[in-house]
Parts: sequence; structure tokens; C-alpha cells
Amino acid sequence: MKLIIAIVQDEDANKLIATLMDAGFSVTKLATTGGFLRSGNTTLLLGIDDDRVPAAMACIEKVCKSRKQVVTSPMPMGGAGEVYMPYPVEVVVGGATVFVLNVEEFRKL
Amino acid sequence: MKLIIAIVQDEDANKLIATLMDAGFSVTKLATTGGFLRSGNTTLLLGIDDDRVPAAMACIEKVCKSRKQVVTSPMPMGGAGEVYMPYPVEVVVGGATVFVLNVEEFRKL
Amino acid sequence: MKLIIAIVQDEDANKLIATLMDAGFSVTKLATTGGFLRSGNTTLLLGIDDDRVPAAMACIEKVCKSRKQVVTSPMPMGGAGEVYMPYPVEVVVGGATVFVLNVEEFRKL
Ligand code: NI
Ligand code: NI
Ligand code: NI
Repeated sequence: MKLIIAIVQDEDANKLIATLMDAGFSVTKLATTGGFLRSGNTTLLLGIDDDRVPAAMACIEKVCKSRKQVVTSPMPMGGAGEVYMPYPVEVVVGGATVFVLNVEEFRKL
Repeated sequence: MKLIIAIVQDEDANKLIATLMDAGFSVTKLATTGGFLRSGNTTLLLGIDDDRVPAAMACIEKVCKSRKQVVTSPMPMGGAGEVYMPYPVEVVVGGATVFVLNVEEFRKL
Repeated sequence: MKLIIAIVQDEDANKLIATLMDAGFSVTKLATTGGFLRSGNTTLLLGIDDDRVPAAMACIEKVCKSRKQVVTSPMPMGGAGEVYMPYPVEVVVGGATVFVLNVEEFRKL
């Protein structure tokens, strides 16, 4: 038995929980507040059989892999006054930190 | 040294914490929000000596064991109109998921 | 790879996160509510290389070590009436409970 602790972005959390539950995993969501710089993290706990670890990892990777996303951001235009022009920027979103721990004993009551 | 992570129903959490503390355990309660389907979970952390694991398990089992409970639920009565009759239903409440992890190093500062 | 779970006092949490991040660690803060008697705990998760455990422990010890602090508390004065005189009292603050767990597998996506 293994315990997976996955720290993911808030935006990815619900989709990941749905994906994991579709795959038959049972998930517990802890309320998380990120560290100073990383706001909006969610921590998930996932107890699984050893041979299902790769399947769970695949779910996490599919949903949370860090990827580039184009957002529209205002940019100051040169010249007098405060005129801003929206322009597209590529930002990195998603990402996950995943720990797999060995479980000595597991009980479902 | 072991770390017990117990995911229990909100309704059972306070009674379990009291029971564990009466038995001399020190408990930390994490704020938890359940997964999609299971709302109202609380996650508890419990650091204990190896030989005290069975005693902690006994506390959890005593308080949280899943059991049937009779609740009163409205049931539609046949016939014209929307007449509902309350009637007793048996539902399963409680239950717990418990992980025991080995602790490599433990410090109390 | 190790996972450190540190349960610290709320008052010490932000300073500890800043200290750990200055030292190059990445930290996740879980929202915690203490047990019955110990209100105001914060739980931190910290994934680190084995050889960095002592450095992380040193940070936690530096910031969170339980120490005496003088607070001013009202004390009833003898005599008729309800006259209270503020007087200094030494209380113990801080402290931390730290678990180091072995990580079987670690992934950063
Ligand atoms: Ni196993
Ligand atoms: Ni031990
Ligand atoms: Ni290692």
C-alpha cells in the first residue's frame, strides 16, 4: 500500500479529483494555502495499492503537467499619459509536486 | 515511531479527538474538505510510539466504525397532490480510512 | 528524499516559511486547526534531499524552539471590590512537532 501526497494548483484540483475518481481512486482534499510565493495550492491524499501507483501518476501528469498558456496582459504604451494596450503573454501554469510514501498498515473501517 | 493519518467523518472528529486525548495521545486536526462525493471529512495526524498503534486503532475503531443509523426521511404518498409522509430509513454513517506510516526521525522542540 | 511534516504555532509559521525559503526550501502550508487544547497550529510540508534534513531542522529549531515569554496579565488584588493589577507572567510559547518520513518516489511535474 502506498500513500500519494500530491500538491497541485487550485485550478487543476477539481479536474484531477474527477479524473482520479473516474479511474477508481478515492481521494481526500486538504485545504491548503500555499507558501509565500506560491498561492493557490491544493493538497490531495490518495491511498492506493502498489501496482496502481503508475496509473495514479499518469492521471496527475495528464491533468497537472506544467504547460504554457497564453493570457492577455495590459502593457504600457510609450508616450504621455497612462495608456495600456492588452497584449498576449505566455505564462507557465499547472505543475505538481508528488510524494509517494510507503504505508506500513492500512485500515478501512 | 509511527505517524497515523486518519480520515474520518466530521461528525465523529470531535469525539475521536477527545477519546484519543483521554488515552494520552496528542492529535493535530487538519481542515479537510472531502472529495466530490464524500463531503465532510476531517483528517487527523497522530504521532505515536510503535507499541501504542493498536491502542490508537482501538480508539478510532470504537468511535468511527461505520454503523447503521435510522433517520427520518419524507416519502411521497401515492395519490393526487404532493403529500409526503415521513418514514424511517437506515443509512450507513461513520467509517474511517487510516494510514500508518513509519517515522524516520521525530523531534519535539 | 524525505518529507518533513512540521506542526508549529501559528505565530511562528510565517517567519519559519520565510526562513526555510531563504534557505532554498520549498514549503507547503496546510490550513490546520489544533486539537482541543492546542489552538492555533499550522502544519507545513517540506520535501527535501536526505542530506538537507539537518539544515531544515536547524531552521525549524531556530524559529520555533519553545521559549519563555513575558506577558502582562491582570491579577486580582486582595481586598474588597474587584480591583485587578496588571502584572508580568512568564509563559512558554513556540514549540514544534516534527516528523521526518522516507519518500519512496518523488516527482516534480
Ligand atoms: Ni504496500
Ligand atoms: Ni518507530
Ligand atoms: Ni531519499
